Parts: sequence; C-alpha cells; structure tokens
Amino acid sequence: MADPLSVHGGRRAAAMARFPEAPRPWLDLSTGINPRPYPVGPLDPAVFADLPDPEDLAALEATAARAYGVADPAMVVAAPGTQGLIDLLPLLVAPGKAAVLGPTYGGHGPGWLRAGHQLRSVHHLGDLAGADYGVVVNPNNPDGRVFAAADLLPLAARLGARGGFLLVDEAFADLEGPGLGAHLPRPGLVLLRSFGKTYGLAGLRLGFALAAPDMAAAIRAGLGDWAVSGPAIAVGRKALADEDWRRAAADWTASAAARLDGLMTGAGFAVEGGCRLFRLYARKDATAWFERLARAGILTRPFAWRSDLLRLGLPASEADFQRLAAALS
Amino acid sequence: MADPLSVHGGRRAAAMARFPEAPRPWLDLSTGINPRPYPVGPLDPAVFADLPDPEDLAALEATAARAYGVADPAMVVAAPGTQGLIDLLPLLVAPGKAAVLGPTYGGHGPGWLRAGHQLRSVHHLGDLAGADYGVVVNPNNPDGRVFAAADLLPLAARLGARGGFLLVDEAFADLEGPGLGAHLPRPGLVLLRSFGKTYGLAGLRLGFALAAPDMAAAIRAGLGDWAVSGPAIAVGRKALADEDWRRAAADWTASAAARLDGLMTGAGFAVEGGCRLFRLYARKDATAWFERLARAGILTRPFAWRSDLLRLGLPASEADFQRLAAALS
Repeated sequence: MADPLSVHGGRRAAAMARFPEAPRPWLDLSTGINPRPYPVGPLDPAVFADLPDPEDLAALEATAARAYGVADPAMVVAAPGTQGLIDLLPLLVAPGKAAVLGPTYGGHGPGWLRAGHQLRSVHHLGDLAGADYGVVVNPNNPDGRVFAAADLLPLAARLGARGGFLLVDEAFADLEGPGLGAHLPRPGLVLLRSFGKTYGLAGLRLGFALAAPDMAAAIRAGLGDWAVSGPAIAVGRKALADEDWRRAAADWTASAAARLDGLMTGAGFAVEGGCRLFRLYARKDATAWFERLARAGILTRPFAWRSDLLRLGLPASEADFQRLAAALS
Repeated sequence: MADPLSVHGGRRAAAMARFPEAPRPWLDLSTGINPRPYPVGPLDPAVFADLPDPEDLAALEATAARAYGVADPAMVVAAPGTQGLIDLLPLLVAPGKAAVLGPTYGGHGPGWLRAGHQLRSVHHLGDLAGADYGVVVNPNNPDGRVFAAADLLPLAARLGARGGFLLVDEAFADLEGPGLGAHLPRPGLVLLRSFGKTYGLAGLRLGFALAAPDMAAAIRAGLGDWAVSGPAIAVGRKALADEDWRRAAADWTASAAARLDGLMTGAGFAVEGGCRLFRLYARKDATAWFERLARAGILTRPFAWRSDLLRLGLPASEADFQRLAAALS
C-alpha cells in the first residue's frame, strides 16, 4: 500500500501516527487549501435542519455562474466537492479511451479505470488528442504549469467532435486567471471549479462542474437531488458573491507565496513551480527534509514519483512562518 | 411538468409562489423529517476549514455500524444523503431489469432509467423476484407498510444468486425496528439508512449504504473521496452514538403521531398508514384540504397518483399543533 502521506495532502491522523513525538498542534502545509478561510459566521439552524430547497440551490448556481464568468446558470452544477464529480463523470459516458496529462493530481485516473475505460497517462498536451476523454489540470497541481485557452479550446473541440470531452480541472484557477468559463457552451468542454481551496473551506464540500446545458443536465441527474448541503449552499452564496474578499485573498496569497519562496530558497530549495495556493520546491534531499519537518510537527507534501520535490501550502500567520523558518534553519 | 408540490415534500419556495397570500412563516408538514432536530451545537471551525480526514470518516462509519447493528464498519459507506446513493447504484452495475415496489418514494426509478436499465413498477413483493435489481422501501413511504425480514432475506438471496441485489431503503427504520443491518453480509442485500430524517438534520446531507464488503467498496469508490462534509462527520459521530436521544425521539414521535392522528380523524380523515415520522390520511376531498391548509400557510403533501390522500409530518410544538387544529376546524 502506498504511503498515505505521499498520496494526498491533509492526512493529519496518518502523520500523527507516523511521527508520534512531533510537537502538537501540527502545522499542516500539505495541501493547497487557503489557510485563511472565508468567515463562515453564525449559520441559521434551518440550513442544517431543512431539506435544501431547489430554489436556493439554483440561486447558488446563478451566483457561481457570475463568479466564473459563465453566461447561463444552466451550465453550472453544484456538487459536494469536485472529487465526486471526477469519479462520477466516467460513469456517465460510453466506455472509451481516457488520457490524463501528468504528472498531476492523483485523484484523476482511478475513476476512469473503475468505470471500464482505457486509461493512459501522457506528458504532452497534444497527446490528449488521441483520446475520447482528456483530462488537464489548469493550473496544474503540483507544478503550477498553465495551459492557454488557445491550446485547450481546439483540443476540446476535437474531442467533442468524436463524442468525447476535454475535462479541464480549474481547481486552482480562482485566484490566478479567468479560466475557461466564459467560453461555454462548447461541445467537448467540461470544467471543474473547487470552492474549498480558494475559500479555505474544504470541509464544507462544495465544487462545481461547468459544461454545456445537456452535459450539465446529465451531471446534475447523476448527482441526484440534494447533493449539496444547506451549510454549503448558504456559505457558497455569500462567499462567491464577495468580490472584495476574493481580491484581498488574491493579494494576500500572492505575498505569502513570495515570502514562502524566499524562506525556501534561503534554505537551499529551488522554486520548481506552483501557484498562489501552493509552491513546489526541488532539492536533492527533499525526502529527508520531509521527515525533518515532520519531526518538527510541520506536514508537507512529498511525491512518490520524484523524491527531490516537496510541495508546501501557505503558512497562515506570522507565527506559522516563524515556526517554519525555525525548522528550516 | 408535474406540480413540484406533489413530487416531493419540502418545496417551500414553490409553495410560497403558489400561495402568496398565505400567512408567514409557513408550517411545513410536507416531509417526514423529525421537526425536533438533534442539537448541532457550536461546531469547531476546523470542520468547515479542513479537508475531512479519512480516519474521522472511518470513525463515523464505525459509529454508524454500531447504531445500525452492522458487524463490520467495512460494510458501512457514508454518503452526502441517500438520494445520491439511490442515483449512484444503477451506474455501478451491469444493465439489467430493475423493479421498484410501488407506490413509494418517487426518488427510486429515474436513476435506473437514466443508467440504461429496464424499469418496472410492481405492486407485490413477490413480483420483485423476476428482476435483477429490486427496490423496497421499508417501512414504505408514504403508507408505512412494513415487510418482514423473513420475506426480504430470501428475495435478496435470490436476486444475489443471479448477480443482482435487493435494495432495501430503510430511510424511516431508525425509530421503528431493528432493520436488516444485523443480517449483513449477505450476497444480494443492500440497505440504505437516512440520517437527516431521524435526527431532523436533512440539510446536513448524511446517509449510509450498508452492504457486503465488496459491494460497499464499489459504492465507496463510486462516491469518491471526501464526499461527506466535515460538519456531517462531526455531528453524525455525536448523534449516532447518542442512544438516549434516539430513545427519547422514538417516544416523542410516537406520542406526536398519536396526537396528530387524533386531530386528523377528528376532522374526518381516516388513518391510511404511516410511521412515527409521517402519517398518511385518506379523505375523498383531500386535494381541496391541501389547498385549504396551504392558504392557511400549512404545507402538506398531496400525491398525483391518488387525490384522496394527504401525508403530514409531525408538528414540532404545541403552537404548531394548535395552528393545525385551527386550520382544520
């Protein structure tokens, strides 16, 4: 079995079990989740008690459409996080050839295999053109590589023409660029947006699929009614309409990322890539550094496929930056 | 398009639009959700912010296994509500013949058709034996009909022997009887449990599939990681371990159901069936009564397939009982 700590970030219990002597509380820098959450505030007890009203869900999707630049809310499907969408999509389409542009987020891939598709991992965007279903993460996780709309849109059209699609996972796009939402509807183009990462509310479980209305309707039906919780609808509506907060988050994350780069390069790491919410660093002995930081109670993200890389999310506060600086020195 | 008010309960916005003159707030008796919710209490902000840790999810499933009498937590799969499970299951199995014992909850059926199965609605339990996938709601919604384990288990075995299964939706079983959880694992037996109805927290989105480990693993994979929110994990762990609360809820709902029956029979309705969380009443002019109660701001549940029936959930308080009594007189 793979080490859970190199499979996905945020595995705090596994980290505590493996490094029982580490000082508590852990400083979890293993994810790309904004460590300064959108303020949830007090929630109306009714959001927990009542079955979510379809009209409230529709209002959330309309707000999301505006936030993502999508012309019509019929092209926006709210879901309890994007991972469920990633695993649902392969079940909704005819068996075919899927290809994932890697290395990337490991959550893409298993769902295609389970649903009976062929699966390839490819290393050049153009290699997706031979597939029925192509998957690109943009910006890519963990290296932050960005693909241009001018390259993605023709690829989506090509896959769409043969009845497939290009899935562009824009999990980390909110604070980076406009994403492709304004180009919808296009046959063959399906986008994913994550709410929890940008807004620091990964536990709330909220994400979106953006697609042409017919594909969106199929995804909506596959999820079933009431897939999204009352708290997620209430908080999502407020947060996605809050442009001031999003601008401030973009500014703060940019400056925190720059500060983190300074700290890590000062400790002998090279910046390999990243985006505002995570940074990827290279150093020959990165695995030893993962262990050393973990013994200091700081959880980072190693990668089984390249032992010289370490990904770090942003420290939330001055104290967290100083704790990291101390552990690096 | 079907009237949304006769498709599913809890459509408050649709009710307000159709009866704009009705006094606010609405008294929503259109669902079978416990109107006295389990106290959510203050939640640790971390349950909203952090990606749910797999070990916390496993702890929830272990607690649910104990609550439902299931021997091994590997047979318990937590999900964001049971409707998503109802729509996911048809996608996970080979196309075949599905049959739903009706009339029953309308959420069963569409998922089988969408996934390319044949679908029949049958009226006798024995008629499910000819299907690959059979669906029974037990106790049944809306009439409260109860099927015995001695009838269901052989049926499940028969469907299981041909590679299918019997899906027993125990959405309303918590306060009624033991359910079939203790009989797992059995080939061909898949159970659903709803959390939101018993605990009055339908907005939280939590439900469970109970099945033999191989089937449970397939459902778990189909849902994807982190399908269940941090708040749902935290509240679910606490509530499902709280046997005192569940006993008190069983007592209160039994007495409230009896009081509701008294009120309704006094107004000329006959008790057609039901269980602790909802009651089904018959009266020739039930549709006119639906309208009359709605104009008084009281939402009940009519049925498109039988105009003489009305289903009511439990009023939460003395004031709600009196408001209903006044509207009935």
